[in-house]
Amino acid sequence: MKIGIVGTGDVGHFIGSRLIENGHQVMMGGRDPNNPKGLGFVKKHPSENAAYGTFADASRFGEIIFNAANGRFALVALQLANTDFSGKLIIDVANPLDFTTTPPTLISEFANTNSMGESIQNQYPKAKVVKTLNTFGMTLGINPKQLNNGDHTVFVSGNDEGAKASTTTLLIEFGWKIENIIDLGDITGARSMELYLILAVRMKMLFGEPIFNIKVIKS
Amino acid sequence: MKIGIVGTGDVGHFIGSRLIENGHQVMMGGRDPNNPKGLGFVKKHPSENAAYGTFADASRFGEIIFNAANGRFALVALQLANTDFSGKLIIDVANPLDFTTTPPTLISEFANTNSMGESIQNQYPKAKVVKTLNTFGMTLGINPKQLNNGDHTVFVSGNDEGAKASTTTLLIEFGWKIENIIDLGDITGARSMELYLILAVRMKMLFGEPIFNIKVIKS
Repeated sequence: MKIGIVGTGDVGHFIGSRLIENGHQVMMGGRDPNNPKGLGFVKKHPSENAAYGTFADASRFGEIIFNAANGRFALVALQLANTDFSGKLIIDVANPLDFTTTPPTLISEFANTNSMGESIQNQYPKAKVVKTLNTFGMTLGINPKQLNNGDHTVFVSGNDEGAKASTTTLLIEFGWKIENIIDLGDITGARSMELYLILAVRMKMLFGEPIFNIKVIKS
Repeated sequence: MKIGIVGTGDVGHFIGSRLIENGHQVMMGGRDPNNPKGLGFVKKHPSENAAYGTFADASRFGEIIFNAANGRFALVALQLANTDFSGKLIIDVANPLDFTTTPPTLISEFANTNSMGESIQNQYPKAKVVKTLNTFGMTLGINPKQLNNGDHTVFVSGNDEGAKASTTTLLIEFGWKIENIIDLGDITGARSMELYLILAVRMKMLFGEPIFNIKVIKS
C-alpha cells in the first residue's frame, strides 16, 4: 500500500523501514524538504519504494498515514500537512509525554479526560484514527518476535471497524499474533493506552532496557 | 500481626478475611461503630482474631493499616482516624476513580502529576506508605493462584524499603510469587499504578469479567 509517515525521528524510521521490508511504498514527510534525516531515509532504501517530502506531500501520498511525530508537536505537524485527511486511516503511535517533570508525566491537556488519539480524531473528523503501537519501544513494536516468541500484547482503539482491520493487517505483517491484538473499542480507548505509558516509562527506567512488554492474561 | 483496615466495603472484607485465614489479627474500622457491614465482619469470623471499631480504633490497633476506603473518600477516612500513623505501615490499595464520566477517569486532583498513594504519604509524613494491589480486582489480589497458576504481576511502590519488605511478605502469603512482585521504586510509582488502572477498567468492561491481569515479560 501507499503509506505516508508524518515525522522524521527514530520512530518514523523504524516504522518506515519495516513497511518497506514488508513490500509497501513509503513516503516520509517532514517540515523541511531538505531535512537530512528525511533524505537519509531515501538513501537507506535505494528502491523506488522509499521517498521523502513535506508533511503535505506524505499526507497526500499515503492511503494510510502514520502519525510518528514527537508527541508534543504531533497536532501541529498534522496541521502543517494542510489537508483534512478525508477518508484516510491515520495510525497514531505518538505519546504526549512531558519529560521535563520527574517522573515524566503526560502533557496535561491530553491526560486523563483526553488523549492524543482523540485530539487527532476531533481535529480531523473525516479521518479514521486508530491508536496503536504506543505502549512499548518501537524497535519491539515493529518486530515483536524479539520477545517471548512474540507472545505479548498490543492494543488498538478507534471508531471505525474497517480502519482497525487494516491496522491489524499491518500489525500481523510486523509479527504480532492475532490473539495478542486487543481491541479496546472506540477512540476513547487511546486514553487508557496513553495513561498506561507512564507505567511503561517507569519500568523502562527501572529495567534499564527497552525490550519488555505486558501480556494480558485472561482466565 | 495486628492489622487495621480502614473501610468496610467489599475490598476491606476480602482483604480482612484473607488476613485472618493467614493467621493475622484484624480490626476493621468504619465511621460508625454500629455499621452492620463492620459488625458482619466480626460475625463472619467467630474467632478473637476479628474485631470491628471506628477508624480511630482500627488505626490504633494495627501495626499495619490497609487503606481500603473508597478512593474518593480515602483521605477523609484516614483523617477521621485522628492519628499521625507515626512509624506505621499504611498499605494503600485504593483507586481515586471517577465513575461519573464516560469512560471512567481518575479524580483529577490525583491524576498524572499526583496520586492517592503520594497524597497519603504527604498527609502523613511519619507513616510508611506502600501502594500495591490496586491494579486488578481484589478477589484476584487476595488469591492470585486463580489465574494462570499465579503467574502474573503485582506492583509495589513506596519510600521505605522495610515497609516494602513487610508488604511483600503479606503478598506472598496471599499467593503471589516473589518473581512477579515488581518494585517500582519510591511512592511516585503510585502514579503509574493508578494511571494504569484506567486501562484495567476498560479491559474489565470489554471482557465482562474481573479475573484477568497483566504479566510483565522481560527479555
